[in-house]
Amino acid sequence: MNPASLPIPDPVLRSAILRSVRFNGLGIVPAIAQQHDTGEVLMMAWMNAAALEETLETARACYFSRSRNRLWRKGESSGQVQHVLDLRLDCDGDTVLLLVDQHGVACHTGRRSCFFLAPRDGVLTEIAAPEASPESLYGA
Amino acid sequence: MNPASLPIPDPVLRSAILRSVRFNGLGIVPAIAQQHDTGEVLMMAWMNAAALEETLETARACYFSRSRNRLWRKGESSGQVQHVLDLRLDCDGDTVLLLVDQHGVACHTGRRSCFFLAPRDGVLTEIAAPEASPESLYGA
Repeated sequence: MNPASLPIPDPVLRSAILRSVRFNGLGIVPAIAQQHDTGEVLMMAWMNAAALEETLETARACYFSRSRNRLWRKGESSGQVQHVLDLRLDCDGDTVLLLVDQHGVACHTGRRSCFFLAPRDGVLTEIAAPEASPESLYGA
Repeated sequence: MNPASLPIPDPVLRSAILRSVRFNGLGIVPAIAQQHDTGEVLMMAWMNAAALEETLETARACYFSRSRNRLWRKGESSGQVQHVLDLRLDCDGDTVLLLVDQHGVACHTGRRSCFFLAPRDGVLTEIAAPEASPESLYGA
């Protein structure tokens, strides 16, 4: 991991990065969160420009919640924050990859990763069990 | 890797899986391709129902090209096919993760992964060099 990645305190540099991102017609891009050391893909969410800029500035993952129509600081309710160690933009600038250190679990179901359904003998099957109860994450 | 994952020859089982997927208003879902053994995230593209069903049936990645508005069998032009060893659906059913064995390179620029831009000292920098020339992949 390169120590000169995130955070980026200079707003001019952050703006230059934002200009390289091709947000879609709704002003958002998909952002994939991957655990930096194990390589596990934890989740995919969306970022608008404000969310991406805050992530660059704070090195903490901030997404844009489409359902709540506001910034979503990962872990603000659950405590399961994502420290962002590095970030990638893809070849056509329309997808972000975050290399994170996930505190606890990424999924609202209490599982480490949101990607826990897989075909087994042709049937979608839960291949991971919750490590925490949703009640413990969000209150009863 | 579970040997009873892909391919899924039974169309009834494939249809049941497709019914668990929440395609967006355009009838597509994001699909992340990850190299199964190294964990490297290679690319993100989109799938409609036909692309996902073909992927389940053939165990070869088939996407939906939004720019060409047709199925895109990864590698059909470049030869850089993706064998799909396993597949994940996320907690809310609107994102697919493919665990693939990428033949050659995933990116049209000739790089192994599309995610080759990263902030270094605050400036987006190419952190991977092409392993193949686009000309060798697509013809001069």
